[in-house]
Amino acid sequence: MTYCVGLLLNEGMVLLSDTRTNAGLDNISTYRKMFTFEEPGERVITIMTAGSLSVTQTTIARLREAIEDDGATGETSIMQAPTMLKVAEIVGNMLASVRAEIDEKLATMRQLASASMIVAGQRKGGVMRLFLIYPEGNFIEATEDTPFLQIGEHKYGKPILDRVVRPDTSLQDAQKAVLLSMDSTLRSNLSVGMPLDLAVIERDACRVTLRRRIEAGDSQFAAMSEAWSRALRDGFTQICL
Amino acid sequence: MTYCVGLLLNEGMVLLSDTRTNAGLDNISTYRKMFTFEEPGERVITIMTAGSLSVTQTTIARLREAIEDDGATGETSIMQAPTMLKVAEIVGNMLASVRAEIDEKLATMRQLASASMIVAGQRKGGVMRLFLIYPEGNFIEATEDTPFLQIGEHKYGKPILDRVVRPDTSLQDAQKAVLLSMDSTLRSNLSVGMPLDLAVIERDACRVTLRRRIEAGDSQFAAMSEAWSRALRDGFTQICL
Repeated sequence: MTYCVGLLLNEGMVLLSDTRTNAGLDNISTYRKMFTFEEPGERVITIMTAGSLSVTQTTIARLREAIEDDGATGETSIMQAPTMLKVAEIVGNMLASVRAEIDEKLATMRQLASASMIVAGQRKGGVMRLFLIYPEGNFIEATEDTPFLQIGEHKYGKPILDRVVRPDTSLQDAQKAVLLSMDSTLRSNLSVGMPLDLAVIERDACRVTLRRRIEAGDSQFAAMSEAWSRALRDGFTQICL
Repeated sequence: MTYCVGLLLNEGMVLLSDTRTNAGLDNISTYRKMFTFEEPGERVITIMTAGSLSVTQTTIARLREAIEDDGATGETSIMQAPTMLKVAEIVGNMLASVRAEIDEKLATMRQLASASMIVAGQRKGGVMRLFLIYPEGNFIEATEDTPFLQIGEHKYGKPILDRVVRPDTSLQDAQKAVLLSMDSTLRSNLSVGMPLDLAVIERDACRVTLRRRIEAGDSQFAAMSEAWSRALRDGFTQICL
């Protein structure tokens, strides 16, 4: 399983993903699920992935190939696409075609291959945009009313986001919010696991302005998690029925 | 959708269910999902239901018929069964047979009928027991390590239970915990809805010692929900990243 979350705020975008993958319950590994493509100051695109590892890895690899291809154009390369909408379309089409290809291979095993992605980015002169790409290649976009998108095991971590994330939330608070959202998910679902990848893309910077890998023993994350537990317990105690 | 939760604590059992059902998104109704069978002081059994309404209603109706049948025995009537384990078996078998029967009717529509139940109870001289009955009729039981069971839309409301519910939690705190767990679920999933049914079964009372229907406008619930939101926001503000 996986949990990835992205926030689209006035000041920028905040992205967080876990790294646990499993092929069955008895085969657990660590794989990065956050991939950044950037030409600092000109264009930044960060993609987070959930679902079948063979689908997501192949999709990302083909997106890279398309960027490096000699004949790359704005129709094929996410680094040349004229708009973020076009980027989302290229990613969606690639995901859908890889998924269909692998799905066909798995049909004889009566298994399904599926994956979804979050695409966050900005190109110079454009606005920041945050998309959720479905396995079929279609997508939705974060808006002022719903400034966050999640993929994977999204339910445990949604209540805290529903409560505290607004477009005017600061980038500092937003990092706290996604980390606490992840903390709830880690506690309730063993198939989501450390380390975590955190990225912040400040508005109009067109590059990743903060990138942090949070390892299992990270004392800052542990302290925050403990403080949140204490706050919840204290809050709970103080409430009258 | 549905959310029902049951806690098995040293002092007793606390049960909470919502009442929203829907046949498609455009056909929403209110149905009770908590059913009590009792002979006060001798035996109490409370059943909560999730899933296809036709399956759960028919199962409950047949359990009632079996109780009232002239030839009722400890093998067929949950009010005569010698143990709570036997009660769980009777409910499980009835649920599985009704589900199979309705499933067959739906096969031509390529739809599945499914349902699950929580069964809580105690008979005089026995111990309190809390079971989760699966659609196939098999079941699991709450224990000291995992003193709560949930059916329906369980994920949004699980983090708070994971954090505060222990076997030695008081019945007062337990009511708070299930109501806050429901509050998180109501906020995040529109297909779970008010009014709510709350029941408390004190240990060895062998009857429902508190029964409360909480309507949509309930000021006490609204105040608790608001206080919890405030506590979460305050806790969030105080945490340092």
